[in-house]
Amino acid sequence: MRRLKYHVAATIDGFIAHEDHTIDGFVPGGEHVDDYLHSLRTDYDVVLMGRRTYEFGFQFGITNPYPWMKQYVFSGTMERSPDSNVELVSENVVDFVRKLKDGTGKDIYLCGGANLATSLFREGLIDEILLKLNPVVFGSGIPLFLGAIKQTDLELIDSKRYANGVVFLQYRVRN
Amino acid sequence: MRRLKYHVAATIDGFIAHEDHTIDGFVPGGEHVDDYLHSLRTDYDVVLMGRRTYEFGFQFGITNPYPWMKQYVFSGTMERSPDSNVELVSENVVDFVRKLKDGTGKDIYLCGGANLATSLFREGLIDEILLKLNPVVFGSGIPLFLGAIKQTDLELIDSKRYANGVVFLQYRVRN
Repeated sequence: MRRLKYHVAATIDGFIAHEDHTIDGFVPGGEHVDDYLHSLRTDYDVVLMGRRTYEFGFQFGITNPYPWMKQYVFSGTMERSPDSNVELVSENVVDFVRKLKDGTGKDIYLCGGANLATSLFREGLIDEILLKLNPVVFGSGIPLFLGAIKQTDLELIDSKRYANGVVFLQYRVRN
Repeated sequence: MRRLKYHVAATIDGFIAHEDHTIDGFVPGGEHVDDYLHSLRTDYDVVLMGRRTYEFGFQFGITNPYPWMKQYVFSGTMERSPDSNVELVSENVVDFVRKLKDGTGKDIYLCGGANLATSLFREGLIDEILLKLNPVVFGSGIPLFLGAIKQTDLELIDSKRYANGVVFLQYRVRN
């Protein structure tokens, strides 16, 4: 079975973005980003995106953000995908992801958003949480999970401290 | 000037306790607790507690939790301190803490709660945040700061990964 990994940047107070989905305040570049991009290129061949996470790239003209992966955007309101490289999934998200995990291939990259992550976490479908913990507090914003989930133990399986103050933390979810 | 340090255990989703102030799910003992208790004994000579944080100990019969420190409990509703070793501060919390920091001595330990931390953070009075980041998500509960604070950069000045999965992270607040 393929592992589904929720791989995001976060503040120490548990936010993955500001309320308006912007992310100023996260350390914008450096070795942790190099490692992250390397991981995206080597560890994953499928990416799952919530609608807002996907549409965040539009302001930069990006509609095909991970061309080397099979890309899915999940939305109940989007009528069609604006890019032929990105497949729209409108219904039965949980069933869809369960089937995807039963297939073969590399790991599956869940890049957000919080709504999608919450739905999948509740069903026990997220195998790992990978945090780029940034040296910042936002004070408000979009939390790691948007809506209550049940208390769940994790296992720390890898970590790395970067000179710029970012700490990478990789946890296995004890589902 | 003395440094005020907010020194707490937290989940990776940014909670310091459950809604009912219980903390089951945090790793209950081990080397990280030994280090923490050692730090409490050597680094601090004053402790600041919110009322609920202080009263949490009552169920265990604890009214004098840090006898080697000067202990303050902050409350607008408490009529008198139940223990002669703990001084009640009812008014002008911010002024009180500002004066305390202007004095001499060791560092000042802010052990919670989130309301008190938020008030002091807003006034730029918290110098460091020390997190015992536990390998768990609560999904809901009492956040690190209870109420919006402004986005603030931090500087990671120390870290330690423990075998039990707890990660200690010490940040300087860039006030």
